[in-house]
Amino acid sequence: MIIQKTENSRISTFDPNNFSFGNTFSDHMIICEYENGKWGDVKLVPYGPLLFTPAMMGVNYGQACFEGMKAYKDNNGQVFLFRPEKNFERINKSAKRLAMPEVTEEIFLDGLKALVDIDREWIPQGEGNSLYIRPLIFATEEALKARVANKYMFAIVATPAKMYYTEPVSVKISDHYSRAASGGVGSAKAAGNYAASFYPTQLAIDEGYDQIIWTDDATHEYFEESGTMNVFVRINDAIFTPPTSEKILDGVTRDSFIALAKKRGFEVKVEAIKVKDVIEAQKNGTLKEVWGVGTAVVTTVFQALGYNGEKLELPRLSDEESFAVTLKNDLVNLQTNLSEDPFGWRVLVDHALETV
Amino acid sequence: MIIQKTENSRISTFDPNNFSFGNTFSDHMIICEYENGKWGDVKLVPYGPLLFTPAMMGVNYGQACFEGMKAYKDNNGQVFLFRPEKNFERINKSAKRLAMPEVTEEIFLDGLKALVDIDREWIPQGEGNSLYIRPLIFATEEALKARVANKYMFAIVATPAKMYYTEPVSVKISDHYSRAASGGVGSAKAAGNYAASFYPTQLAIDEGYDQIIWTDDATHEYFEESGTMNVFVRINDAIFTPPTSEKILDGVTRDSFIALAKKRGFEVKVEAIKVKDVIEAQKNGTLKEVWGVGTAVVTTVFQALGYNGEKLELPRLSDEESFAVTLKNDLVNLQTNLSEDPFGWRVLVDHALETV
Repeated sequence: MIIQKTENSRISTFDPNNFSFGNTFSDHMIICEYENGKWGDVKLVPYGPLLFTPAMMGVNYGQACFEGMKAYKDNNGQVFLFRPEKNFERINKSAKRLAMPEVTEEIFLDGLKALVDIDREWIPQGEGNSLYIRPLIFATEEALKARVANKYMFAIVATPAKMYYTEPVSVKISDHYSRAASGGVGSAKAAGNYAASFYPTQLAIDEGYDQIIWTDDATHEYFEESGTMNVFVRINDAIFTPPTSEKILDGVTRDSFIALAKKRGFEVKVEAIKVKDVIEAQKNGTLKEVWGVGTAVVTTVFQALGYNGEKLELPRLSDEESFAVTLKNDLVNLQTNLSEDPFGWRVLVDHALETV
Repeated sequence: MIIQKTENSRISTFDPNNFSFGNTFSDHMIICEYENGKWGDVKLVPYGPLLFTPAMMGVNYGQACFEGMKAYKDNNGQVFLFRPEKNFERINKSAKRLAMPEVTEEIFLDGLKALVDIDREWIPQGEGNSLYIRPLIFATEEALKARVANKYMFAIVATPAKMYYTEPVSVKISDHYSRAASGGVGSAKAAGNYAASFYPTQLAIDEGYDQIIWTDDATHEYFEESGTMNVFVRINDAIFTPPTSEKILDGVTRDSFIALAKKRGFEVKVEAIKVKDVIEAQKNGTLKEVWGVGTAVVTTVFQALGYNGEKLELPRLSDEESFAVTLKNDLVNLQTNLSEDPFGWRVLVDHALETV
């Protein structure tokens, strides 16, 4: 790995109690370029701009995929990643589906650890705080031909993060728009999937909702995802979530919630969720909770479902009654080293590089 | 418009008889930046790299759409655009579906004409030659949050083009993969649509085909598009093409083919095309031609259709017998000022700027 430390650290400008998530960038980034059929050296360099023309294939033909993950600092200042091998596996699944070159474990995990290590001062301590980390691969070749690119960049950038979306939100069950086609790229973390969701989400916001529960594009009879998250439904004391498929992202938080729910002895059913069963459960009072899970937000609890022009209210549960909040706390406690780690999910980030 | 001419023209290195399409760029490009809710000045500048970080939202969340169009030089050296207002309308449709800001006619058309004017020496003369022009809009804001961006760039870049794909190709009728969801972004020229098509196309190539005929994702019973083109089928002497929809791109070449076919008195049916009807027509000998149309290639004629593991051969027609070739010639003659223009499709590009 080629390491070029910044000579102008911005860490003194970073106030862990007052920062903007998503556009406050840590001092460094990882970059690695692919050309002539192979990846070059991994480079840890100061965060900043690089040279690209508007003919860059990544913005013309959308060969671009990413991961979202976090590093956590415990009360003693130790830094942990959470199940990073899952993100490594998934970025390569996404890359394959978009006909992009896969990265090696060395590029991904060593790059990740080096960045988190050198920028560990950018990780805010305290409940719900973390460093949000964005590995991505995108086509960099300059060419105006709709074909697989020959040049790519793998990069990792990072931004400090705090808990957000704390209020319960209202979601519209989609009856027209959809995020994934059968035989499409819904299970990939493809850049294009996100852009496709923005306009329908804006329309839902205009109708008084915060997000969309995506349903299957052919019939709109089945739940798929919620916003940019996997979706869970609780009817009585059973938790349901749809199985992953080529249309549904294999979320790390989703997988962790399932494992944590089983550990608590909750009944978990990974099966197709019919819209009409959820609506019926709401009508007869057995629908207790609906929530979304994802790395950025961890959990968003829903307070109402929009369906057929009706806004169907969900019960307001206390934190103790809520499976969503219980499992979220279990997860955050594990991630931040406040609880045991029976699954072996935490990965300590050693002090390997001198910090800046 | 702010005009900054290159001081290092590369035109002397350009051999119109020997160049590579898609990665030979003309001397200049148009750029225009969107910030604080509005577009700034249109700038004509030397083609070249700009500064972007890997946190650029365009490659993270896929807000990126483009157009493909051409400028033609006639035998007298006059330069024409072809129906540029159609591309202007469509880029804004794409932008809207991706929750991106629309561009004004002034930004798009004046920028386009200025670029083609100043780089007119880059337009190769002669049959099938042209300057391929790529207007695009992409999100430039640096932020790691899956939301609508606040900063964008509109750009136009250009590359000399010659006729390609002259040999008839074999296409596989898709039975699993698909390019568009109902309620998705198939009718937008969204960057992500192209990346999504590459892997299935590679699999088809591995099976001995050149391209894919995309079918509806729910049943695979209906034709949608072919490769990156609109598709036409001729049964006996009737021409069929599917109606545009939210899943099918409203192609300028498609629209022009329909108009030119009607002008010739051909029977044109804009209606859903059932895979089984095409297969049946192939079996009973009434299937005469299947072809794709698009700006880059104009027309690709298909010689075989892959369906259910069978390679179904199409008749080899002479150029005179072929409706595809007849209409292609009508179109190219009109575009290059070799024939009348009863539709008012050609737009002369004036000498407004001194050429470099």
